[in-house]
Amino acid sequence: MNKPIEGSRGKQNDATEEVDVRWHVATISRNQRESSAGHRGCVIWFTGLSGSGKSTLANEVDKQLHARGHRSFILDGDNVRHGLNASPNLLETIHGQPFAKRFGLGFGAEDRKENIRRVGAVAELFTQAGIITLTAFISPYRSDREAVRKMLPETDFVEVYVKAPLDICESRDPKGLYKKARAGEIKGFTGIDDPYEEPESAEITVESTTNSPQVLAQQVLVWLERAEVIPVR
Amino acid sequence: MNKPIEGSRGKQNDATEEVDVRWHVATISRNQRESSAGHRGCVIWFTGLSGSGKSTLANEVDKQLHARGHRSFILDGDNVRHGLNASPNLLETIHGQPFAKRFGLGFGAEDRKENIRRVGAVAELFTQAGIITLTAFISPYRSDREAVRKMLPETDFVEVYVKAPLDICESRDPKGLYKKARAGEIKGFTGIDDPYEEPESAEITVESTTNSPQVLAQQVLVWLERAEVIPVR
Repeated sequence: MNKPIEGSRGKQNDATEEVDVRWHVATISRNQRESSAGHRGCVIWFTGLSGSGKSTLANEVDKQLHARGHRSFILDGDNVRHGLNASPNLLETIHGQPFAKRFGLGFGAEDRKENIRRVGAVAELFTQAGIITLTAFISPYRSDREAVRKMLPETDFVEVYVKAPLDICESRDPKGLYKKARAGEIKGFTGIDDPYEEPESAEITVESTTNSPQVLAQQVLVWLERAEVIPVR
Repeated sequence: MNKPIEGSRGKQNDATEEVDVRWHVATISRNQRESSAGHRGCVIWFTGLSGSGKSTLANEVDKQLHARGHRSFILDGDNVRHGLNASPNLLETIHGQPFAKRFGLGFGAEDRKENIRRVGAVAELFTQAGIITLTAFISPYRSDREAVRKMLPETDFVEVYVKAPLDICESRDPKGLYKKARAGEIKGFTGIDDPYEEPESAEITVESTTNSPQVLAQQVLVWLERAEVIPVR
């Protein structure tokens, strides 16, 4: 396989000769990755109150995309908060206190902003890899979501507002967080003592109380077909 | 498509009825994603001096994997330092000075450690997605590389030491960094006034002065075949 190298600025080599490894190597483009995947990469950004069904819907969309053979992945609190955006406490056990204090992410306003910023940046990397990237975070502030939108090429950001009345989300309370927030054990909880800023121009709005996740996910897939992110089946 | 839902704890719905969106939705497992990809996900961690050929080799491996129809992606300074691990200066223009000061990453020892930690965490996410994730960072400290290794299941971390004599790396100096380091314009530059700690048990060691990137990349692919990360062609 010691054939001449296309576009090489270097010389041919044998095992002992010095080689200039700066030889031009074509990098694989996003287009090539998408072509191999058979669909475009994009970020589908699910936003809504805790308990609105973001994660359930994102998982169902993921499942339906996977069933079609597409490349998708979910970023959510479960896989991000234990690694990339770990808390100070978690980091401290691994890297010590000063490091954890500087780089750990809590739940203050700045920390939440940075949490969303990093998720956006990682979602962008996945998108470059030709993956349909589903994110499921409350992401309550419009400015944070818009900052992610602006990071990306225009057609790469698909905002999905998972709408559900607060009282229903609170009655579901899947993680018991509303109860804690009402008891004052959690401060700054979205919907209780911190605002949720509704999207003003989400690409898709679904009312999670009106239909099953399966039906709502299909609506998302139809949208993706029409936007030519995925081929029509 | 309003068929009964497998494993559903909920009830069937129509458009007006309230739906419990906590209905169980099976999440797609890593195994399912890998099965769809036709290979395992893993992290191939290229380490070596600046100018050793890490990035060139990683790109060539990526190209050869892509040519086989595999799912791979590169994380390197080019795509990570402009987004996820942006510098204070870059963040300041977007999010303002206090935010940038807290969350921007410079080139101090702690910042470099956090840079590598985040890259490791993102590589883990890509691996979960069934992607063969190639990283190309100097990553000079053994402890930082070992911390990434420990994050991952044992067979997921493939360390590739791209070995080249310092004088050759310095004579290549693709980014002019050695020149700046020698002139004292960059402090703490690996190989000049900061150590490069050679891997002690890298899965693969390649001497980048002995062969072309194409041949070296093939050695990596053969290793991946033998480790049953990718199928034998």
